Amino acid sequence: MADINKLLEGFKRFRHNIYDENPALFDRLTSQGQTPKTIVVGCCDSRVDPAIVTDCDPGDLFIIRNVANLVPPFETGGNYHGTSAALEFGVRNLEVENIIVLGHAQCGGISALMQQAPDEEQQKGFVPSWMKVASNARNRVLSRMHGEPREKQVRACEQEAILVSLDNLLTFPWILERVAQRKLTLHGWYFDLEHGELLRFNPDSNRFEAFS
Amino acid sequence: MADINKLLEGFKRFRHNIYDENPALFDRLTSQGQTPKTIVVGCCDSRVDPAIVTDCDPGDLFIIRNVANLVPPFETGGNYHGTSAALEFGVRNLEVENIIVLGHAQCGGISALMQQAPDEEQQKGFVPSWMKVASNARNRVLSRMHGEPREKQVRACEQEAILVSLDNLLTFPWILERVAQRKLTLHGWYFDLEHGELLRFNPDSNRFEAFS
Amino acid sequence: MADINKLLEGFKRFRHNIYDENPALFDRLTSQGQTPKTIVVGCCDSRVDPAIVTDCDPGDLFIIRNVANLVPPFETGGNYHGTSAALEFGVRNLEVENIIVLGHAQCGGISALMQQAPDEEQQKGFVPSWMKVASNARNRVLSRMHGEPREKQVRACEQEAILVSLDNLLTFPWILERVAQRKLTLHGWYFDLEHGELLRFNPDSNRFEAFS
Amino acid sequence: MADINKLLEGFKRFRHNIYDENPALFDRLTSQGQTPKTIVVGCCDSRVDPAIVTDCDPGDLFIIRNVANLVPPFETGGNYHGTSAALEFGVRNLEVENIIVLGHAQCGGISALMQQAPDEEQQKGFVPSWMKVASNARNRVLSRMHGEPREKQVRACEQEAILVSLDNLLTFPWILERVAQRKLTLHGWYFDLEHGELLRFNPDSNRFEAFS
Repeated sequence: MADINKLLEGFKRFRHNIYDENPALFDRLTSQGQTPKTIVVGCCDSRVDPAIVTDCDPGDLFIIRNVANLVPPFETGGNYHGTSAALEFGVRNLEVENIIVLGHAQCGGISALMQQAPDEEQQKGFVPSWMKVASNARNRVLSRMHGEPREKQVRACEQEAILVSLDNLLTFPWILERVAQRKLTLHGWYFDLEHGELLRFNPDSNRFEAFS
Repeated sequence: MADINKLLEGFKRFRHNIYDENPALFDRLTSQGQTPKTIVVGCCDSRVDPAIVTDCDPGDLFIIRNVANLVPPFETGGNYHGTSAALEFGVRNLEVENIIVLGHAQCGGISALMQQAPDEEQQKGFVPSWMKVASNARNRVLSRMHGEPREKQVRACEQEAILVSLDNLLTFPWILERVAQRKLTLHGWYFDLEHGELLRFNPDSNRFEAFS
Repeated sequence: MADINKLLEGFKRFRHNIYDENPALFDRLTSQGQTPKTIVVGCCDSRVDPAIVTDCDPGDLFIIRNVANLVPPFETGGNYHGTSAALEFGVRNLEVENIIVLGHAQCGGISALMQQAPDEEQQKGFVPSWMKVASNARNRVLSRMHGEPREKQVRACEQEAILVSLDNLLTFPWILERVAQRKLTLHGWYFDLEHGELLRFNPDSNRFEAFS
Repeated sequence: MADINKLLEGFKRFRHNIYDENPALFDRLTSQGQTPKTIVVGCCDSRVDPAIVTDCDPGDLFIIRNVANLVPPFETGGNYHGTSAALEFGVRNLEVENIIVLGHAQCGGISALMQQAPDEEQQKGFVPSWMKVASNARNRVLSRMHGEPREKQVRACEQEAILVSLDNLLTFPWILERVAQRKLTLHGWYFDLEHGELLRFNPDSNRFEAFS
């Protein structure tokens, strides 16, 4: 109960310090609805909360969080496409102008993906099944970094997986159309929590570069 | 770019005020990994960020965010079960002790669900498909609140959908087992952003009751 | 043959005491067809015959009987939806005004469901497959009554299963529509054959309450 | 409410006249469980209640009721085989000694089946789908009674459908085995509610013959 009580105490602080102190903001957010300009696809990891890491305000970010901040490809047949539904809502209903895929160091999902032997790909469980979305990233890393230390491979895969998700975003026709028309911009960000650094993918240099 | 620059400025504040000021916390979080005690299943809505609403610290909450904070039922056949994968990771790998389904007022997903005419249920798109997870909530509200104002119906459905998700959590065998053994507790919370109130579901009274 | 002869003797009594004594009733029932106002979804159990327990007349009740008086959810893909077909006939053709889900104590189907170990859920046979309709009821009971005596769990599950069936009734669009329009009323009844009591679900109190 | 009140009044009579008057019977039924010797597969039709038509006692009959008293063939793939589950429970758990398929005159399900044009077989709805179980009966009647009055065809189909169900019962391996060993007997009965007559199928004469 200590953990729950801490959250309830936190709510009181939010209510007192944020909600009561910003009546105009919350009036606008409730009377006009949300108008975020940016979607963040982040990881569920408790250490890389997008709202904390960007110190954003209520109303700023439409945030999707799943294991390893993945975007699956456009695929109409399956059931319960939670991430696709959230993208659809954010892009088509809210008309955001940015989508940030926010990866991070020490990702448990990517680490699990890299530890699978090739013949374990069919292993059971929702996590292995979900992580297949990033299997292209894993393949790229295994093909060019054979024999290198596991940590380097995992870090490389964490970044490659961001690029796979950026690719997959373009498979949604209503995303591709808006990107082509310059109404929507896609961003690949990587939070290195070991060093407190934010890296951003630069398509020109084809590298993740530190922001400072 | 103004929106992206605001986020980058926010990152600088996070880096300076949070990361650099709490070296022991981030040392622990990176050397020992994350050990959150609580999963929050929250909505993508930009106005109800779980980290902001609970003023939590990095490392406190493993957060899943999808449209309308839904938990689909345990179902092994489909592809890309993002929410199920995240629950599996949080419950089985991280061994959290609480799962909070955090609903909220003015939910766009629930509002869309309630506006569907019965014969539109087969309509296309990821959002209608995803929102079917909450169709029992919609049915309950339509059956007992016919003719009442739309806003009352939506609010009732937002709360019923939390109960559907709590039911669905129990369909995951590794959740049911831990709940039965009192190792894991499920919570239904509802953030009324219009009044700044937090309501919690009380199974004894079968009602959502205000926390103050 | 004794059992069959008893039934044939019973038919003679029916013919003499009921059929021949009520020519106007049977004239109406055969010339105008049946016009029951109520569907009962009852269990096959020989001890809880709906016609006996309500001492009804021929023509009063359109009765569906299956193991554990279950209503599966609306689901168009499968084959041989016997219960769904009977509901469709009663609601759409006969335009009944009430549906009673009539549960009961000492239900063998529910007892079997509660005796399954979680890892036996995939066991073979028609009964385990059919009883999955009530798995949410089982989950609720196991999650909150861990360690309590089996009989108490079974009784709680018998009642929860009635609520699951009431929920499932609302998944049929032609039922939901009529309930919303107040043309059709759903009832959850529970016959406690050990004490000869009839309990009815009260949605306001969220409890089964004794009728007397 | 008048209909529901009539049922509640009926329950009071049952409680007073049957339950309270037969304490030894109900003591046995609750302390030892049910031990019916006979399964009846009857129609949901409100005019042909098996308990009323046979004037049976509580505990005598394990009763399955679906539209048109049909038995589908043994078929393991589908979902929610309600009738198959009930047969399994009655034959394998309760070890009944008789199964009576109880058909009747003026069956709405059979009438609907006979009114379908051949190319309407794919028509929508649960009832047409369910009635396909009896399509062999329909085919036999159409092939040999072409041009005869509809009522004669329907009556013939009602009786043929009983024979189809008797055939289908034998597709269940645990029924076939018991029938072969003379532990279980199958009966085809037909209640002619227009004349108050009970007809029984005689395999030797291959006819339905009146019981008197």
